[in-house]
Amino acid sequence: MMKMGFIKIFQEVLFMAGNVIVGQSGGPTAVINSSLAGVYKTAKDLGAGKVYGMRFGIQGFLEKKIVDMDEKIRSDLDLELLKRTPSAFLGSCRYKLPEIGDNRELYEQIFAILKEYDITAFFYIGGNDSMDTIKKLSDYAIIINSDIRFMGVPKTIDNDLAVTDHTPGFGSAAKFIASVSKEIIRDGLVYDVKSVTVVEIMGRNAGWLTGAAALARCEDCEGVDLLYLPELPFDVDAFVEKVGKLLETKNSIVVAVSEGIKTADGRYVFELTSHTEYVDAFGHKQLSGTARYLSMLISEKFGCKSRAIELATLQRCAGHLTSRVDITEAYQVGGSAVKAAFDGDTGRMVILKRVSTDPYICTTDLYDVHKIANVEKKVPLEWIINDGTYVSREMENYIRPLIQAELTPVMITGQPRHIVIDLEH
Amino acid sequence: MMKMGFIKIFQEVLFMAGNVIVGQSGGPTAVINSSLAGVYKTAKDLGAGKVYGMRFGIQGFLEKKIVDMDEKIRSDLDLELLKRTPSAFLGSCRYKLPEIGDNRELYEQIFAILKEYDITAFFYIGGNDSMDTIKKLSDYAIIINSDIRFMGVPKTIDNDLAVTDHTPGFGSAAKFIASVSKEIIRDGLVYDVKSVTVVEIMGRNAGWLTGAAALARCEDCEGVDLLYLPELPFDVDAFVEKVGKLLETKNSIVVAVSEGIKTADGRYVFELTSHTEYVDAFGHKQLSGTARYLSMLISEKFGCKSRAIELATLQRCAGHLTSRVDITEAYQVGGSAVKAAFDGDTGRMVILKRVSTDPYICTTDLYDVHKIANVEKKVPLEWIINDGTYVSREMENYIRPLIQAELTPVMITGQPRHIVIDLEH
Repeated sequence: MMKMGFIKIFQEVLFMAGNVIVGQSGGPTAVINSSLAGVYKTAKDLGAGKVYGMRFGIQGFLEKKIVDMDEKIRSDLDLELLKRTPSAFLGSCRYKLPEIGDNRELYEQIFAILKEYDITAFFYIGGNDSMDTIKKLSDYAIIINSDIRFMGVPKTIDNDLAVTDHTPGFGSAAKFIASVSKEIIRDGLVYDVKSVTVVEIMGRNAGWLTGAAALARCEDCEGVDLLYLPELPFDVDAFVEKVGKLLETKNSIVVAVSEGIKTADGRYVFELTSHTEYVDAFGHKQLSGTARYLSMLISEKFGCKSRAIELATLQRCAGHLTSRVDITEAYQVGGSAVKAAFDGDTGRMVILKRVSTDPYICTTDLYDVHKIANVEKKVPLEWIINDGTYVSREMENYIRPLIQAELTPVMITGQPRHIVIDLEH
Repeated sequence: MMKMGFIKIFQEVLFMAGNVIVGQSGGPTAVINSSLAGVYKTAKDLGAGKVYGMRFGIQGFLEKKIVDMDEKIRSDLDLELLKRTPSAFLGSCRYKLPEIGDNRELYEQIFAILKEYDITAFFYIGGNDSMDTIKKLSDYAIIINSDIRFMGVPKTIDNDLAVTDHTPGFGSAAKFIASVSKEIIRDGLVYDVKSVTVVEIMGRNAGWLTGAAALARCEDCEGVDLLYLPELPFDVDAFVEKVGKLLETKNSIVVAVSEGIKTADGRYVFELTSHTEYVDAFGHKQLSGTARYLSMLISEKFGCKSRAIELATLQRCAGHLTSRVDITEAYQVGGSAVKAAFDGDTGRMVILKRVSTDPYICTTDLYDVHKIANVEKKVPLEWIINDGTYVSREMENYIRPLIQAELTPVMITGQPRHIVIDLEH
């Protein structure tokens, strides 16, 4: 026992003498920097040497675009600002590593850089594509018998990561979508005329974010009228009929649609206008957005006022309206990844485990990244109800705890203050 | 002297025995209900009898869609929620009264309803079209020797009302635009690739809101790169050249454009794709949005990633991010209108008078509504600089005080709570 204890302490001391590196990958979220803050602060607290950050993920790493985080985060105030700054502080990339067998030189290059910077642990904050990077790097470490640890930190507004109850980033995007849906519904009721508003929401393959629009339904709001998720085929005629029925009894109809809804024959709804082969003056095939197309269709069919609203990138970068639950969990998964790596773990991703929904209690755990990488988690079909036009109370109950409470932005001269790695001039 | 004093007191007593009515008109804003709260609270405090609200402005009034505000606002909490609820609580309309000579019967009808409800003062919260209503009704009152007072309360996100330093509603829209512009800029910097983002902002004829995007430039943000206001003709070739120049030295370019920019020959930019006479499957002539068109053009010319973001109705209904200065002034102009009417004024609009910019001090005054109705105030051309691609620091200094501080929404179950007149089922 004493000997084992001695060895463990000895390993930890050896380990802690080393440096760590952290990167961000994939699409930005409002809280991905809170995970970065969690990694940085926990690594420093647990005695890491240098904490390096890779600019623009693994792609920048390969070009040795590496920064010393101590030079970027100089105070507790900086750390608080980092939690509140949307979009990836270090920059991000969409870069998939080749299979190890296909380009071993690249892996040698990566491990040479890791050696050069004396890195003992590597943290990657991202979605299922990014977890592929952790999988391959931890596999390669085993092959070459390296003791560098590779840990994944979950992140994506899309909430489509496997195993974890939900992903950091989703809660804040859901809160923004639910809140602005209420505001859009209110705005739609202003005139005493018939009108249809179609709101387009991100999530090409998974309808988690579109489902979040259902949360607009609460004591002071009747909610959106129809919700269409990409998990089920979209029937244009049935949609038109539904809207027509609603227009008979209501003035203002608000519909939430995923950008990725497809008809039964597999075509995206936003492609439906393009089959006329319309090409604009610049030779560019012009596609309508999903909401744009549906709104036009409604106005044509019923002659009523109709408008399309694309929430676009606002839903992933709205740092001014984040969920405190989300931002706290984002910090926790970052910190847990560091703690696990320092305890000897590798090739794993931190997951969120919901202990209870009411009261909401959630802890972290670790899971083999091989079972998470490249897997897409969709909304369970039993949560999609009313002939595919709404989501169940069960889904609302699943999402509701994740949008609770706020982390007030630091407002300077009337706008949210961010921390930036450097200004581009 | 004693006699006049006696008459004044007598008038006030007579006056205060009567009822008042208030309506909202034109496009919604995030703070138009704060003006409604100001009218309601001040009228009650100054001893009004009933405070009636007209549903859907003068249009609903003509159908006697009239509510008793005491039944809708039952507590101080309700009043606070009203200040924080975006879009018109009473509903709104876009309805222009005919000239008095053209339809005298309509005016007789209006005054009959006013008599039926024993109305002594009429308040209308709106923009320059709505002030036309106040002008005509106060004119008609003079003609028929009625002592009902008609007062205008300014409101519009567009900030295009004459005489007043600025309009309630503008500050909150400007704060939202400035804040999300910062977030969009941050989002654009995430990848190490060239990209162009075109943000489309409301204001078809006046560039006040587009100019507000300039406020994104502050200590932690380099700001948007180019700004195009509708006050000057838009040169597509010069725009493409500017963007091309910027792409030589920068990765991420963010451009803010007014939805209403036009080429020198008077065509809206969003009409530029339509001259191919493209008609979709439903016979609907398809127009690209301004940002959409420009973004497509850039991607075609430079082969780089390009995206369009329309802030759409979010910029006018974002009750979750309002300016406290704005919401307070909106309340004040409502209250001042009541005070003035009770003091005997009619046919006037409350204006905001800036006493000083630094420190920001602003008071209210009254102005003849005849000189405000139907007049559109544009951005002074000397504030548009750099060959029409930016706005001056003077414009920034004009706007900055109007976006200061916040009025925290009341957050319930993770979303801003609103007060609603009734739920539509």
